[in-house]
Amino acid sequence: MKRNILLLHCPDRPGIIADITNFLAAEGANTMYLEQHVDREQGQFFMRLEYEYDSDTLPLDNIKQRFTSHISAHQSAQWELYDAEQTPNVAVFVSKYDHCLYDILSRHASGELSVAIPLIVSNHDTLKPIADQFNIPFVCIKVTSQNKAEAEAKQIEHLRKHNIDLVVLARYMQILSPDFVSQFPNQIINIHHSFLPAFPGAKPYHSAYERGVKIIGATSHYVTSDLDEGPIIEQEVVRVSHIHNIPDFIRMGRDLEKLVLSRAIAHHIQHKVLVYANKTVVFS
Amino acid sequence: MKRNILLLHCPDRPGIIADITNFLAAEGANTMYLEQHVDREQGQFFMRLEYEYDSDTLPLDNIKQRFTSHISAHQSAQWELYDAEQTPNVAVFVSKYDHCLYDILSRHASGELSVAIPLIVSNHDTLKPIADQFNIPFVCIKVTSQNKAEAEAKQIEHLRKHNIDLVVLARYMQILSPDFVSQFPNQIINIHHSFLPAFPGAKPYHSAYERGVKIIGATSHYVTSDLDEGPIIEQEVVRVSHIHNIPDFIRMGRDLEKLVLSRAIAHHIQHKVLVYANKTVVFS
Amino acid sequence: MKRNILLLHCPDRPGIIADITNFLAAEGANTMYLEQHVDREQGQFFMRLEYEYDSDTLPLDNIKQRFTSHISAHQSAQWELYDAEQTPNVAVFVSKYDHCLYDILSRHASGELSVAIPLIVSNHDTLKPIADQFNIPFVCIKVTSQNKAEAEAKQIEHLRKHNIDLVVLARYMQILSPDFVSQFPNQIINIHHSFLPAFPGAKPYHSAYERGVKIIGATSHYVTSDLDEGPIIEQEVVRVSHIHNIPDFIRMGRDLEKLVLSRAIAHHIQHKVLVYANKTVVFS
Amino acid sequence: MKRNILLLHCPDRPGIIADITNFLAAEGANTMYLEQHVDREQGQFFMRLEYEYDSDTLPLDNIKQRFTSHISAHQSAQWELYDAEQTPNVAVFVSKYDHCLYDILSRHASGELSVAIPLIVSNHDTLKPIADQFNIPFVCIKVTSQNKAEAEAKQIEHLRKHNIDLVVLARYMQILSPDFVSQFPNQIINIHHSFLPAFPGAKPYHSAYERGVKIIGATSHYVTSDLDEGPIIEQEVVRVSHIHNIPDFIRMGRDLEKLVLSRAIAHHIQHKVLVYANKTVVFS
Repeated sequence: MKRNILLLHCPDRPGIIADITNFLAAEGANTMYLEQHVDREQGQFFMRLEYEYDSDTLPLDNIKQRFTSHISAHQSAQWELYDAEQTPNVAVFVSKYDHCLYDILSRHASGELSVAIPLIVSNHDTLKPIADQFNIPFVCIKVTSQNKAEAEAKQIEHLRKHNIDLVVLARYMQILSPDFVSQFPNQIINIHHSFLPAFPGAKPYHSAYERGVKIIGATSHYVTSDLDEGPIIEQEVVRVSHIHNIPDFIRMGRDLEKLVLSRAIAHHIQHKVLVYANKTVVFS
Repeated sequence: MKRNILLLHCPDRPGIIADITNFLAAEGANTMYLEQHVDREQGQFFMRLEYEYDSDTLPLDNIKQRFTSHISAHQSAQWELYDAEQTPNVAVFVSKYDHCLYDILSRHASGELSVAIPLIVSNHDTLKPIADQFNIPFVCIKVTSQNKAEAEAKQIEHLRKHNIDLVVLARYMQILSPDFVSQFPNQIINIHHSFLPAFPGAKPYHSAYERGVKIIGATSHYVTSDLDEGPIIEQEVVRVSHIHNIPDFIRMGRDLEKLVLSRAIAHHIQHKVLVYANKTVVFS
Repeated sequence: MKRNILLLHCPDRPGIIADITNFLAAEGANTMYLEQHVDREQGQFFMRLEYEYDSDTLPLDNIKQRFTSHISAHQSAQWELYDAEQTPNVAVFVSKYDHCLYDILSRHASGELSVAIPLIVSNHDTLKPIADQFNIPFVCIKVTSQNKAEAEAKQIEHLRKHNIDLVVLARYMQILSPDFVSQFPNQIINIHHSFLPAFPGAKPYHSAYERGVKIIGATSHYVTSDLDEGPIIEQEVVRVSHIHNIPDFIRMGRDLEKLVLSRAIAHHIQHKVLVYANKTVVFS
Repeated sequence: MKRNILLLHCPDRPGIIADITNFLAAEGANTMYLEQHVDREQGQFFMRLEYEYDSDTLPLDNIKQRFTSHISAHQSAQWELYDAEQTPNVAVFVSKYDHCLYDILSRHASGELSVAIPLIVSNHDTLKPIADQFNIPFVCIKVTSQNKAEAEAKQIEHLRKHNIDLVVLARYMQILSPDFVSQFPNQIINIHHSFLPAFPGAKPYHSAYERGVKIIGATSHYVTSDLDEGPIIEQEVVRVSHIHNIPDFIRMGRDLEKLVLSRAIAHHIQHKVLVYANKTVVFS
């Protein structure tokens, strides 16, 4: 028995659930888990469905083909079928901050993150020793205002070579060009160290301190061509007070960043995130 | 168009969702919202489903009858069909603490709680002025160790007279007898002022202070014949420190109690809670 | 024995604590509680100190006089001495939303808020029945773009007549003029229904929904002439997800607003808040 | 200039703060930060005070001596003077779970934890590769019911050899004997994977799942001879629901355990924790 995951969204109308669960039942697949959401304002229906099937009699390709025929006949939907057992390839981009990298590599080593990490990409060689420590290939590509296009071309070449499914910006301190971003739509996750939309851009802990907020946060989001404005996947906060200074904010924020980034990665690789209208549906 | 809510649980097996959504579609009803849960350990399937239908051509009684036939033919399920527009009758039991009562009556007056509150029951007359202030009938029935059975009989008489669907113990300081409880299964919600199962019984804030915990909580649960051991509906916590003494715990706890009790009431009256194996499924 | 509270801030230098605790000891007063904070960036020292003294031999006026002489000789400080037993007069400003008003009046009636509330001011008569219910005088002063100056003059007249120490804007939907604000420096507390500085201005729940945040918040702050930019006293947040729509945000936000506003009021009336550089020190 | 930290508690009486700040001023030391707490119920005064002094003219030993004379003349206090720059030696005890070990070693490698970690002690060799990865000596001492006394003697020998100031039980799955514990009073920190006092002992996530709680937690505490009953240093919680099963609890709990343990270590090594009556005062 194999397990597939269907992620689908389409204009809402009556009967979608019955239609799809019936199709699967008729194909001999068992619906194991179904979660749906209707956005009444947008008139959109969202669904995540896990089903099991006998892969001998019913290969994934066949289901895909038949589902395509079925669904194209019945409704205009955007959907994707995933093999639940397939391990996604993740590239981690870093600069000089090491806490998120340590966190991701530790979770990976502990077996908590079911991904392959074929490479770490950085614009500095500062963190190479950590990559070595965890036996992950480390690619250092310097990025300057002069060589940016060229550097990104090299980065993308590495990503393509390793069939990267997800790019994780683990406090990577460069802004990706719109061209780079457009090649990996909803496949690049960034961690921003503020409670967006408060304090976008540089030095958010300094701005938060300056403003005198009583709670600070971190936000993970898909990268779009608008800086810090992509669809938010996860946020977390921690209470601060007047006794905390900027180094305290940075220190406390590190724990938020690790949590929020790792949760976003987990949601993504389990195919629990759907993007629509610059917002996310994150299934449970 | 009318809206019904189906709450159902049964042993898990493939095809339940398709079976029920198909039945409803065939009846001319539109499934508006479906949420399901499978407890793999218990092998139980849980579902909450909202559907709309034309009440002229398809009265609720008819659907109930036909659904009963349909479901009894296909599977052994426990289920309930609710009319979403029907306003439940709630009785609030209090003693001397007023904060939860004020909270419930304020929410009710604001139109936030879609219930009728035909009576407040108390073993003291302390809070009668608040009932008067909000124009809710107040019944004072003294309870002593001698007259307990008799007092409860009177209470139940009042509940029956007003067709009470839900009893809310808003810091009611008496323990209901097993006989009382058995007459209102999963229809009595209590607020306990600790993070259960820590600190059951009397004076939990004192015990929490004594133990030196760094977080205190409150728990709302259905009342069963085992004191403070009924199915938990909702919990909330707040951080404390060495600077807080018992009066601080009590003061901070009041806000937790109000929140946790009001959320439990809201979940219950929207038919979002299913009880199984002394635990709750609380649909979102 | 009486209790006073000293709130003080001054440029930081060694020996301040010893100097002041010695002065008080020499006066025959017992320091009961002392909390201090040093803002290294601003070079400022902040202190809150409670002391007890025999009011027969040492009236408050005398201490004030002697402390003034003492401190003016030694350091340039800004300070205030409060009689801990004195009940502050609070005016509540409202428009049409009732939840914060219910919350404040319930806490007041429960004895949780040690203040007098000699009047409620509104630009609508919508909430007069609630004022009546709690027996608080209600003053309705319509505010239009034409009569604003005149209306504020009337409001201020009422505030002065009742010796109001604190104005609480409990979802009051008018912007106070800079002139009004300047007459009550750090004496007007507003509740804003977002996690400031995110979503200032009108309709923050709509903006939060639009942006797809995963956490919403509320902020209480002193009112300054810059809208929603005054010193933040307290913030609280609650987790939301794609399943929540704008009415859900509004409903969940109401509980945040009540909590955050009531906590700010409690901090203020206990003389725990010091304002410096548009930020607050909130002593515990 | 050097910085010392004074941790002190004594029966509460007027004038303690003035007495000690004066003593320090007279010695030529500058009080940089002072935090105090009075436990009215226990009648105890607690203080943490940081002061700076010129170490050439005033060596730490001298201050200690003079402070001892001073304080023994004036009051019966328990106190400790720490050199703020001295790096404590920490031993980490583990068994087979790796997440807390990874977390501690990553924080250490990042420079976030200002300690030396001269050794990791385990009753299994499972985690030796992680120790190797971070270049920390790893000592494997098997513990059985037969050899327990002997094994502990060896452990203690290692601890003494490395002048260990703090033992961190990072999911170490053995119970230390009362004799071991008595040799390191308030110097052994354990992480328990529940919100104590709920679910002490083995398999707390299973018990929490069984009980149907809506929030799970983790607790760090000093180890005493009563299992899971030592003074609590820090707790944290996370919301769960019916959709989470035991593996989910374990997964979500790991993040709590890491946070709560690392915070407790940070508090301890900054000399912010005082123990009294089986409870902690944790200065900010």
